[in-house]
Amino acid sequence: MFNPKFIFTAMLAASMSTAATAETVETERHTVSITTLADGFTHPWGMAFLPNGNMLVTERSGNLYWLSEDGSKRKKISDVPEVVAQGQGGLLDVVVDPNYSENGWVYISYSEAAAEGKGNSTAVMRAKISDNSFTDKEVIFRQAPKYESTAHFGSRLAFSPEGHLYITLGDRYSRMEDAQTLDNHHGKIVRIWPDGSIPKDNPFVGNDQALDEIWSYGHRNVQGADIHPDTGELWSVEHGPQGGDEVNIPKAGKNYGWPEVTYGVDYGGAIISDVAVKEGTEQPFYYWVPSIATAGATFYTGDAFPEWKGDFFVAALKSSLVARLDLYEGRMMHEERLFEDAIDARIRDINQGPDGYLYLLTDQPNGAVIQIKPTD
Amino acid sequence: MFNPKFIFTAMLAASMSTAATAETVETERHTVSITTLADGFTHPWGMAFLPNGNMLVTERSGNLYWLSEDGSKRKKISDVPEVVAQGQGGLLDVVVDPNYSENGWVYISYSEAAAEGKGNSTAVMRAKISDNSFTDKEVIFRQAPKYESTAHFGSRLAFSPEGHLYITLGDRYSRMEDAQTLDNHHGKIVRIWPDGSIPKDNPFVGNDQALDEIWSYGHRNVQGADIHPDTGELWSVEHGPQGGDEVNIPKAGKNYGWPEVTYGVDYGGAIISDVAVKEGTEQPFYYWVPSIATAGATFYTGDAFPEWKGDFFVAALKSSLVARLDLYEGRMMHEERLFEDAIDARIRDINQGPDGYLYLLTDQPNGAVIQIKPTD
Repeated sequence: MFNPKFIFTAMLAASMSTAATAETVETERHTVSITTLADGFTHPWGMAFLPNGNMLVTERSGNLYWLSEDGSKRKKISDVPEVVAQGQGGLLDVVVDPNYSENGWVYISYSEAAAEGKGNSTAVMRAKISDNSFTDKEVIFRQAPKYESTAHFGSRLAFSPEGHLYITLGDRYSRMEDAQTLDNHHGKIVRIWPDGSIPKDNPFVGNDQALDEIWSYGHRNVQGADIHPDTGELWSVEHGPQGGDEVNIPKAGKNYGWPEVTYGVDYGGAIISDVAVKEGTEQPFYYWVPSIATAGATFYTGDAFPEWKGDFFVAALKSSLVARLDLYEGRMMHEERLFEDAIDARIRDINQGPDGYLYLLTDQPNGAVIQIKPTD
Repeated sequence: MFNPKFIFTAMLAASMSTAATAETVETERHTVSITTLADGFTHPWGMAFLPNGNMLVTERSGNLYWLSEDGSKRKKISDVPEVVAQGQGGLLDVVVDPNYSENGWVYISYSEAAAEGKGNSTAVMRAKISDNSFTDKEVIFRQAPKYESTAHFGSRLAFSPEGHLYITLGDRYSRMEDAQTLDNHHGKIVRIWPDGSIPKDNPFVGNDQALDEIWSYGHRNVQGADIHPDTGELWSVEHGPQGGDEVNIPKAGKNYGWPEVTYGVDYGGAIISDVAVKEGTEQPFYYWVPSIATAGATFYTGDAFPEWKGDFFVAALKSSLVARLDLYEGRMMHEERLFEDAIDARIRDINQGPDGYLYLLTDQPNGAVIQIKPTD
């Protein structure tokens, strides 16, 4: 997998320039330019903004890059952990601490091999970046149990306003039934403190039958998450089966139904459950049939796109689109599908930059960071 | 316009049989059959079920028909009022009184010419049907002012649980600004008692500057209406301009924004308003961009389609579809577009029959009553 084109040092990077060709696209409420800020990433998966506008970008194969604000310079961060880069696994999400300027913590989620024997699961590490290297590494969460599968690792990381870290996980595909039992982390969203300790008011603390980290359960494969800017609540986005991708607003201790309750069918058309509504399980906020293959998600809170303020944006792998959910007072009024014609790539993540622009990550062999700016 | 093919008497009708060929369509939650119950209607516009399952069907050209439950027999009702059958005008909606079995009242909306001079507007008449003839005719509402236009008459009729009659109207197109002033009925939804008298608690009663019939304003062309089965509230559906068809839940005295606030642009792309949200105006419950050309609408409350119970169905002229809005606890979770491939016709109205099946009306030169039944 060694490709010298993608090895950069600070010095080399200074001489690197990305051919940025902008395309203009009219959307319902804004006319925008689409600019490839940086490409040459191999299946990039997650991205995060540092306070100064520079970025961190993961490649699923296990690489972490620092990328300058304008995309022209990049540096590979060394000493990131070994990852199981198979199937859907690898180095996945990255976020920076809300107090990054003070503490320098960076958090990554990744597929981690079992220490002994077979199996793997999603882990979360925090570390600092010093001299382009990962230091002070602490594994703060390990999805249990380890299981031999290359599918459904989740995952996204999101900080609550109170400083909790939400970790969204997958059901490991062939262990989907585990999503309904509480003695494991399959098909769960967990909530921990950034040092890995468990919030005392987590919903299952004190329940001997349940793992203390669990925030909500009955999820399938959650690859999108953000915090609502007004309510502070977690919003999550999960891949459903064929049909049935969902937006949820996961509440403490609640059951989101998978695999007992779903709007989808299994790939190939087999019925998983013909039940879409069931007592004791929560209905989604919104769902897609057919699936668009939902990945990263973000609320838009900036000033660059005033007509998009408060809307929820969901990146999708299938159809190369971003779904804009036009929200008003907590209600879903309209879905606009953006960039279907303009971008021909699986869109794995979407983030808002400190500049108020939107940034997309295309999960391709030659993946890119794409900047969306208003031109109107 | 005389076409002997469409003239029926009770005797002739008995020998008439409609070739009913059913097509089976899989939808997300139900597999259904689509059967043409009766055709040969010229641009049918509205339909209503009598308590015994027989139907009344309007033709925009000015004819009203009684149709037997199985579609095999029809009779033309004589002595219906003269209508202005031009452009979008003509004989429009029909409903029967909630106490029809006791009082026999039938209500029609239609485009009525000015008594003197030019101009027309939507009027509502109630009458009884005796010996296939309209009798005891009373005009209970006249949209004011009369205006010379062939466009945007509305209209649908819907009874509240308390027995009010809601009449949904249009802005008469070139009089769109009237939708924002209260001294006229253009772009309004009005609420009256079935005898034409005005409910004392109508929102503008006692306001000298406003017409007492007005319930809500700022509407464009409202051709869909039904009462929410749980809340008893009116839900209305209006044609937006190019982009911006809306579902609203019109509240007493509220302003729904047209033409100051819209998600659409005028046909040809001209900006009507680039304001979508404005203080003092209400946001829609849901909206379509691009437009689907929304017409009739109904809540589904029957038992024949358990998975559709509580959902809101909207007929659309463009794309020949029915939009199913999957509602849960008052929230909009998902839109499914039904019959796009199976039906090639403008769908003007949708109703639930006493049998719990859904019935569509296709607004075509050879228009039909179509029955939707479950096969699963």
